[in-house]
Amino acid sequence: MSNPIPEDADQRLADPNSLARRENILGDEHSWLELQDMLPHPASGVTADSAIVSAARTSFLGHSKGADQDKRLLLYLLKHRHTTPFEQVEFKFRVRAPVVVWWQWVRHRTWSYNLQSGRYTPFNEDEFYIPKTWRQQSPTNKQGSEGLVSSEVSKELHRRLTDIAHDSFALYTQALEMGVAKEQARLVLPAWTSYYVAVCKVDAWNLMHFLRLRLATEAQWEIRQYAEAILDIFREVMPWTSEAFDRYLNPQTSDSPLA
Amino acid sequence: MSNPIPEDADQRLADPNSLARRENILGDEHSWLELQDMLPHPASGVTADSAIVSAARTSFLGHSKGADQDKRLLLYLLKHRHTTPFEQVEFKFRVRAPVVVWWQWVRHRTWSYNLQSGRYTPFNEDEFYIPKTWRQQSPTNKQGSEGLVSSEVSKELHRRLTDIAHDSFALYTQALEMGVAKEQARLVLPAWTSYYVAVCKVDAWNLMHFLRLRLATEAQWEIRQYAEAILDIFREVMPWTSEAFDRYLNPQTSDSPLA
Amino acid sequence: MSNPIPEDADQRLADPNSLARRENILGDEHSWLELQDMLPHPASGVTADSAIVSAARTSFLGHSKGADQDKRLLLYLLKHRHTTPFEQVEFKFRVRAPVVVWWQWVRHRTWSYNLQSGRYTPFNEDEFYIPKTWRQQSPTNKQGSEGLVSSEVSKELHRRLTDIAHDSFALYTQALEMGVAKEQARLVLPAWTSYYVAVCKVDAWNLMHFLRLRLATEAQWEIRQYAEAILDIFREVMPWTSEAFDRYLNPQTSDSPLA
Amino acid sequence: MSNPIPEDADQRLADPNSLARRENILGDEHSWLELQDMLPHPASGVTADSAIVSAARTSFLGHSKGADQDKRLLLYLLKHRHTTPFEQVEFKFRVRAPVVVWWQWVRHRTWSYNLQSGRYTPFNEDEFYIPKTWRQQSPTNKQGSEGLVSSEVSKELHRRLTDIAHDSFALYTQALEMGVAKEQARLVLPAWTSYYVAVCKVDAWNLMHFLRLRLATEAQWEIRQYAEAILDIFREVMPWTSEAFDRYLNPQTSDSPLA
Repeated sequence: MSNPIPEDADQRLADPNSLARRENILGDEHSWLELQDMLPHPASGVTADSAIVSAARTSFLGHSKGADQDKRLLLYLLKHRHTTPFEQVEFKFRVRAPVVVWWQWVRHRTWSYNLQSGRYTPFNEDEFYIPKTWRQQSPTNKQGSEGLVSSEVSKELHRRLTDIAHDSFALYTQALEMGVAKEQARLVLPAWTSYYVAVCKVDAWNLMHFLRLRLATEAQWEIRQYAEAILDIFREVMPWTSEAFDRYLNPQTSDSPLA
Repeated sequence: MSNPIPEDADQRLADPNSLARRENILGDEHSWLELQDMLPHPASGVTADSAIVSAARTSFLGHSKGADQDKRLLLYLLKHRHTTPFEQVEFKFRVRAPVVVWWQWVRHRTWSYNLQSGRYTPFNEDEFYIPKTWRQQSPTNKQGSEGLVSSEVSKELHRRLTDIAHDSFALYTQALEMGVAKEQARLVLPAWTSYYVAVCKVDAWNLMHFLRLRLATEAQWEIRQYAEAILDIFREVMPWTSEAFDRYLNPQTSDSPLA
Repeated sequence: MSNPIPEDADQRLADPNSLARRENILGDEHSWLELQDMLPHPASGVTADSAIVSAARTSFLGHSKGADQDKRLLLYLLKHRHTTPFEQVEFKFRVRAPVVVWWQWVRHRTWSYNLQSGRYTPFNEDEFYIPKTWRQQSPTNKQGSEGLVSSEVSKELHRRLTDIAHDSFALYTQALEMGVAKEQARLVLPAWTSYYVAVCKVDAWNLMHFLRLRLATEAQWEIRQYAEAILDIFREVMPWTSEAFDRYLNPQTSDSPLA
Repeated sequence: MSNPIPEDADQRLADPNSLARRENILGDEHSWLELQDMLPHPASGVTADSAIVSAARTSFLGHSKGADQDKRLLLYLLKHRHTTPFEQVEFKFRVRAPVVVWWQWVRHRTWSYNLQSGRYTPFNEDEFYIPKTWRQQSPTNKQGSEGLVSSEVSKELHRRLTDIAHDSFALYTQALEMGVAKEQARLVLPAWTSYYVAVCKVDAWNLMHFLRLRLATEAQWEIRQYAEAILDIFREVMPWTSEAFDRYLNPQTSDSPLA
């Protein structure tokens, strides 16, 4: 198969069909997230909230009794963890995030992923996440952070990681020029900071499970920013379900023991 | 959005929003199947075939080079079992089938199901699958059938199963009147023949896996009729992918060792 | 392939290698359940509880600090829903249950199942679940039961279901003799009451999820009896984990909102 | 049971209970793999091959007719993709591999993983994969490699990656000393080369699916070495199943179109 990539291709640009988009998620222009599509689609004339109620009513071959009753049923379903109707709604995102975020994200095995390939696509120099502020090790949570280090230290680390990224990228480019395979040449790069694009799809129940874990204060700051962006979109497109989420699952607003 | 389900809705009737519907699947009016929704929805302006190509191109950040190249890429993907892009398309069906069919269907664990509850919803007298023709035991395949028994035997069995269904249903009704719980009263019914409605959702890759197994001549005739109805709709809404399926996976048209 | 079933085969007998067995689960000799194997196996010298602690310690490359600390860590893991270590233990059961139970059981999609085939194996006359007591419809829970109907009604229903099973089985036998395929002849049987054997395997986390749902008072009485038998064995082989389950997930002993 | 992990245990050392171990997988002492446990365990008196045959026989309530017939049935099962019995056997590995390998491995969503946490555990200076030989970009496969670059280039790249690892690690250590959280300090490291330990568990069917993809010549060399080590152990513990795999699925020895 000949090379299918046209000269002017750029999947990193906004998709004109997307239903919602959030940018600068990690404070730089490389980090963004789009709701590329969803089931049901707004143009289908069915809302996602009502699709859930309608799926739940299959149990008793029932039908809608109006918005108030429908919403009450939806809240009841989530409160009592009748989760299968929430599987009947799908979210499809296109996301650009550094490997340190994907490393945690892809552990969620109920999502479908199509991920940019570092074996196939060479990296560009600007494709690194270099934080301007650096967080302190939490004294109580061995795997968490709490507060920031001084701005002097932050500046110093930003400068030195910029240097590492620059020098590593120069070596990466040199290795490619010397004929080294992309899959191996990338070893020299600071991979946690490398940005990758992915299309990733999940149903509404497993989206809430993701949010429940990744909105928690114990979650790493970087993936939490993506979770916050998703929550923001979730509230727009599923007002009833996100209200139920806030009430029964969201670690920030409920007292769920799962938080 | 206004209420999408009218007051007098009956979940057994056709959904006006459905994208496709097939009836009389088992030769009676009780057996039907609808494509209730799909991702991407036709109204979204993106075809399901192109959604797959576009997901695959995430690997190399490429974009479309026109229909011919796109279709060629899609055929290549399925031939070489690059299956993840096919997970990015979803089918949501509403189906009415007897338990003998669901019993086999629900073993496919990659689908999401919302099923009518016999604990909640009482059965009606007409909710039974009573075949007019009866199949002979295959002499070579211990779990299959081959050809039909005589029409006299078929008529006799149809008559006697009709009687069983009638008498059992009378006892069921009586038990309910005597206050027995629906969940237990149903024990007296010929359950394999009881019709249940379900909403069930699956991605395009796992749909093809289902079809591959349930279109095979070894599959039981009843579920094969549902698989044929789905294949028919699949061909309408995903012409490229169904062509790839016919070429590389369909046990009826390919020489796949998986057939 | 020639018939691999020897004349004297009977998979319905107890497996001599089984680690535990419970009988008369539904009050008749047909209903039983065995723990056929588990990972880790007792003979391996590693307990299942310690296998979970050890998997959890992979996160920090830690090692055991003695039984007290290990147990405390295990309780902490379940309390805070760190569920992945609980996936590292497996239970493999062999179970004989009627279809009314399997119908609910197989909806748990995280189990692996190998189920007796009614297309392959003819049924025997004694393979039916015919309750001696019948439960009343719950006045408050549309899909539940509460209390029993009078013993007269129970006797009457037992007698009449016995008759249905007997007559249906006679017709089934006749149909087989007339050459009808087993897969279709079974339509005449009262399927909810037909006993099937299955081998089914699940990890400890998903076992607890199953128990959480099927031990609840809302669960149907029949499957609850199997859940109780499993809980009993679970307590024997995983004392720490079952203590954590009772504390944080068991709907009968905890105040989990998921119950 | 007494404590199975001694006080001085180091999770990077060999587990005395392991059933098999392979070392120097990537040519250095950091890369290794153990079969930590399996279901059925050898000490249980049941072989893994026979556990599959026995699970398959549940369909027809049959039992063993001797080794020859059993093996023939097993080959038949895999040839005709009756995959569910192969889910009844489990492999539990403990593996040390660099992130470039895990990045591909964790995309297999049917495995259970417990992975070392870089948020929790600080890295050591020697925990990097620094190849001695470097591969050329394949001229025909955009995501593959073919042959080696000159030994001069290899030496040069080895030296320079060693320097990057050394300097980055020095900065990492400094950042930790300045109080930066481990989760963020690691951004400066060449992550693709960082070694992580994981416990990962999978059933025999999904193991074969993993091998089928990761033994292929298109797979990246690094993960292929782990797949080869697993195949080697697989042949030891499941002689019949691995013979069936070689015949029907292995891309190196069969002409499966899935290869």
